[in-house]
Amino acid sequence: MKKVAIVMGSDSDLPKVQPAADKLKSLGIPFEVRVLSAHRTPDVAASFSATAEENGFGVIIAAAGKAAHLAGAIAANTILPVIGIPIKASALEGMDALLSTVQMPPGIPVATVAIDGAANAAVLAAQMLALSDEDVRAKLVAMREKMTADVLKKDEEIRAQFA
Amino acid sequence: MKKVAIVMGSDSDLPKVQPAADKLKSLGIPFEVRVLSAHRTPDVAASFSATAEENGFGVIIAAAGKAAHLAGAIAANTILPVIGIPIKASALEGMDALLSTVQMPPGIPVATVAIDGAANAAVLAAQMLALSDEDVRAKLVAMREKMTADVLKKDEEIRAQFA
Amino acid sequence: MKKVAIVMGSDSDLPKVQPAADKLKSLGIPFEVRVLSAHRTPDVAASFSATAEENGFGVIIAAAGKAAHLAGAIAANTILPVIGIPIKASALEGMDALLSTVQMPPGIPVATVAIDGAANAAVLAAQMLALSDEDVRAKLVAMREKMTADVLKKDEEIRAQFA
Amino acid sequence: MKKVAIVMGSDSDLPKVQPAADKLKSLGIPFEVRVLSAHRTPDVAASFSATAEENGFGVIIAAAGKAAHLAGAIAANTILPVIGIPIKASALEGMDALLSTVQMPPGIPVATVAIDGAANAAVLAAQMLALSDEDVRAKLVAMREKMTADVLKKDEEIRAQFA
Amino acid sequence: MKKVAIVMGSDSDLPKVQPAADKLKSLGIPFEVRVLSAHRTPDVAASFSATAEENGFGVIIAAAGKAAHLAGAIAANTILPVIGIPIKASALEGMDALLSTVQMPPGIPVATVAIDGAANAAVLAAQMLALSDEDVRAKLVAMREKMTADVLKKDEEIRAQFA
Amino acid sequence: MKKVAIVMGSDSDLPKVQPAADKLKSLGIPFEVRVLSAHRTPDVAASFSATAEENGFGVIIAAAGKAAHLAGAIAANTILPVIGIPIKASALEGMDALLSTVQMPPGIPVATVAIDGAANAAVLAAQMLALSDEDVRAKLVAMREKMTADVLKKDEEIRAQFA
Amino acid sequence: MKKVAIVMGSDSDLPKVQPAADKLKSLGIPFEVRVLSAHRTPDVAASFSATAEENGFGVIIAAAGKAAHLAGAIAANTILPVIGIPIKASALEGMDALLSTVQMPPGIPVATVAIDGAANAAVLAAQMLALSDEDVRAKLVAMREKMTADVLKKDEEIRAQFA
Amino acid sequence: MKKVAIVMGSDSDLPKVQPAADKLKSLGIPFEVRVLSAHRTPDVAASFSATAEENGFGVIIAAAGKAAHLAGAIAANTILPVIGIPIKASALEGMDALLSTVQMPPGIPVATVAIDGAANAAVLAAQMLALSDEDVRAKLVAMREKMTADVLKKDEEIRAQFA
Repeated sequence: MKKVAIVMGSDSDLPKVQPAADKLKSLGIPFEVRVLSAHRTPDVAASFSATAEENGFGVIIAAAGKAAHLAGAIAANTILPVIGIPIKASALEGMDALLSTVQMPPGIPVATVAIDGAANAAVLAAQMLALSDEDVRAKLVAMREKMTADVLKKDEEIRAQFA
Repeated sequence: MKKVAIVMGSDSDLPKVQPAADKLKSLGIPFEVRVLSAHRTPDVAASFSATAEENGFGVIIAAAGKAAHLAGAIAANTILPVIGIPIKASALEGMDALLSTVQMPPGIPVATVAIDGAANAAVLAAQMLALSDEDVRAKLVAMREKMTADVLKKDEEIRAQFA
Repeated sequence: MKKVAIVMGSDSDLPKVQPAADKLKSLGIPFEVRVLSAHRTPDVAASFSATAEENGFGVIIAAAGKAAHLAGAIAANTILPVIGIPIKASALEGMDALLSTVQMPPGIPVATVAIDGAANAAVLAAQMLALSDEDVRAKLVAMREKMTADVLKKDEEIRAQFA
Repeated sequence: MKKVAIVMGSDSDLPKVQPAADKLKSLGIPFEVRVLSAHRTPDVAASFSATAEENGFGVIIAAAGKAAHLAGAIAANTILPVIGIPIKASALEGMDALLSTVQMPPGIPVATVAIDGAANAAVLAAQMLALSDEDVRAKLVAMREKMTADVLKKDEEIRAQFA
Repeated sequence: MKKVAIVMGSDSDLPKVQPAADKLKSLGIPFEVRVLSAHRTPDVAASFSATAEENGFGVIIAAAGKAAHLAGAIAANTILPVIGIPIKASALEGMDALLSTVQMPPGIPVATVAIDGAANAAVLAAQMLALSDEDVRAKLVAMREKMTADVLKKDEEIRAQFA
Repeated sequence: MKKVAIVMGSDSDLPKVQPAADKLKSLGIPFEVRVLSAHRTPDVAASFSATAEENGFGVIIAAAGKAAHLAGAIAANTILPVIGIPIKASALEGMDALLSTVQMPPGIPVATVAIDGAANAAVLAAQMLALSDEDVRAKLVAMREKMTADVLKKDEEIRAQFA
Repeated sequence: MKKVAIVMGSDSDLPKVQPAADKLKSLGIPFEVRVLSAHRTPDVAASFSATAEENGFGVIIAAAGKAAHLAGAIAANTILPVIGIPIKASALEGMDALLSTVQMPPGIPVATVAIDGAANAAVLAAQMLALSDEDVRAKLVAMREKMTADVLKKDEEIRAQFA
Repeated sequence: MKKVAIVMGSDSDLPKVQPAADKLKSLGIPFEVRVLSAHRTPDVAASFSATAEENGFGVIIAAAGKAAHLAGAIAANTILPVIGIPIKASALEGMDALLSTVQMPPGIPVATVAIDGAANAAVLAAQMLALSDEDVRAKLVAMREKMTADVLKKDEEIRAQFA
């Protein structure tokens, strides 16, 4: 089974990235977590990316803030699908990271999720892997059903609270 | 081989969506093109989405402008990966469509590409399918090599022009 | 007398939505409160919306954050007027929810109020119902007069404080 | 039957406001069109608004650009529902008009539609009137059905074009 | 000597408006402070504004947040110069108030200062009055000299701290 | 009678600044027009500003685009009221010029008008001068009355057109 | 004498980059022009950057649009100063390129100039080289004097035109 | 060896500017720290700038918030390279300072770094000085190597944590 890589630009992003790891774990998908900087370790980021496929990765999730080049830098060196998580850092509410991640030029897309949307990045990775993995597919269906059930339960509670 | 669906919210979006069809064609990936409105044909959009998997689709690309709900509405009814193309319509430079597409809530991600980034949506879809399709994979590698060669050629030309 | 529905996309929005319930109560307008997600319970949201009119609702208030599709998704399935409350969630100051709610395509409007403007959503619903309900109309007139009186009183106090 | 007022802040807004008149006409709803400026004719705007109800109006649509105060100024003098159309003028892509229209303070809501969303303003007015007018209701249902049919037809055409 | 009016849209704005009062006091300029709402007390705001000149006012300072119509509503009823202070309220960082205040249509300007710039509004009012009041002029010159001296002193301190 | 200075940062701004000159002319207010750059002729801009008062100026209007420092640079050297016109240049819709002009630090206000709001800058200058000039005051009152009459006439025409 | 490199992400950026070449030429500074894509030729961009110093370059100017990673990608591989020109491409008015270029993380700065500010990028490069090159310094002084003279001449002309 | 000047617009900016001083110290580059206001001490700022070169400075770093004119005002009076740090003050997340600093007109560039990017301003200054100073160059290389090593170490730790 193909692994997912979760890559962050700085170890300080870990609290924001953790939900991706948690979600992949709950979906039974193997993953590795790396700190790779597009600017401070460009060579390592490039070689990691260029060898990701042969090292058993199927999807790469990249999280970065500010001028968030990490997802694009990784996408430049692989044809694996790359998911970008724009991280909200100190200023501009994450708009800088969102635009730096999503506005990729022709030929090298980054599948961008919401600002600080780490859990959704993991779900998206799982959806990609589920295309050829029935186990992951089944877990996604179950997760979706649980989500629906949770909302229905909350609906019932709040409906009653105001009845 | 799994098909890709290209869905647009209005037939007026066709010129912006056409590059996705062209790119999929050039990559040899089967696809269908649909006009489905999250707001004017919600039932059809929902049933299309709910049955997409059993109808042989592997990835759904959804393009919409303004309050672009289409990608999210489709993602709500399937566990297939959904790629969103925010379309720049008359006002706000496409920022409304971008935020409406990318800022999805927990559990239901949309893989968002750049504003008017139809060609990249097709590339991203191909990258997902290439995870389990060696043919598509090979075509992506060739496309990437051609892109690189094109830039190198342009580099040579412009370098010479200013030498 | 027609009821108002207050629908929120997640039970975590309740504190922001509560003022709508409080205001409707103070205006003597019957209402129900629901948790319906455009993305996690799309079928329930659609069927609620499609049957709202026959179930005695006259106006639907929908509150959601981020890529706030809820109001639009509900408006797609009914011709009842739908009022959208963009909720300010963690990032982007609510601008994402505002644009996702207000920038609706031709044919399916959402009557959008201010970011986190739950109380005003209730007032707007009351104004709609007052078109054919003299009681609500009278209560709105009284509420408006009280508001005016409150400002005049504050004016007097602060005027005196600086005199 | 109650009339709708379409009010614009400047006669130069007429081309952007015309679709509201066209749509009301097609729905068989009586309306009047006025030029009233919140800043250049504040007294007339106020007295128009204060007497709108007794003059047979049920809903007021107000369109203005830039620091668009018109809808709010009208809402301040009536308890009729007021619909605001932010007009995109020369700069800032209509964002100034949108925020000036939608971000109303507690107690005085404006039902805001999309930037340059005149046709939708008319539909929203019709939805409000349909709460107590079966004729308008029937016309809205027919309009919605036609919209749906139009999309389905386009879907068929484009689907065939790419088949 | 002409008075300055400081008008706020809600008594909750007082903490943000207070610096204007303090500054006018320190410049020896008589002033009154009022709570007048463009939306909740439109008549009082209009009549205050229309009679401000004959009541001895020379400049009106108006502070409001969100869809900040107050300064414009006052400017519509007087030819006295009106200074607008956009107040940063809960959302959008005050951008809504800034655009609602500054983007006035032809003929009715509002002299807009920075978001939450109450002290500067008072200085600007003083500058206007100083055109025909030598006392205020002298105080402004002294204030400016003190400001300069304060910066020079800080410069000396910090320069030394790093020497 | 005090003169008004109209200062622009570049002669290319003249078409956008011309309406200020036209309006001042129509109000019978003497003025001079200058090209002074905060960045390319800082000394001349500073000395112009520092001597403006003794040279008979009462108000300075400054127009500039992009990082529009001109109004602030002039305000730094005089206690005359300075009116800033943010000019919409090639990018960012004039938002850069607006923020650079209006967000002045404590002590040195700039009375900012709308983006490309040259005519309003002239009206605001006239309003300041009218505080001590009965002639200007009378002309402003007449101008306001004409504006009101113009709107009323347009109202009549358009009202009739749709009757 | 050290050379300047002008690097663009796509040959389609050439018209926007040309002013940088023109300005360097007029200042007598040797330069080369390259097309290097951070995403389509990452290896070439990296090796160009890593060897730029030994190849006789003193400053690198990098121009790119959308998610403009080029300047940052180059800065990651050299300690030469890198100047970034954000290019305004089809959407978002160049705001995406500005934020992607300027919001660099700690340790790897990019000296960012205005959107489409190619000429200024060349001036900035010249200012850096002038620190150790008296010829460039003299040319910069002359250029500045000419700029000043040009503004003074325009000032005289326009002043006369309105006198 | 040439000195670096660190100039701030207000002593309240010191905490945000301190990292620039710390970084220069660690790189062994002599520097002075000044408080100079473009608006409150324009003469001192201008004369400091005009004499900076002869006083032994090689680069000037200028930090300011809101309508941040300081860097531009200094650049107007010297041909030394000027680095601008936009400071995030109370409102607008620093966007006002960023645009006021970076959007400089032709001829007078400011090398802008990220919002609150003081440390990077120092690195950029060092990169400029390193063009003609082998010691600084060596220290930059060492700093870069340490940065890389730090990321690699964090990578190892976090990789292990999730293994």
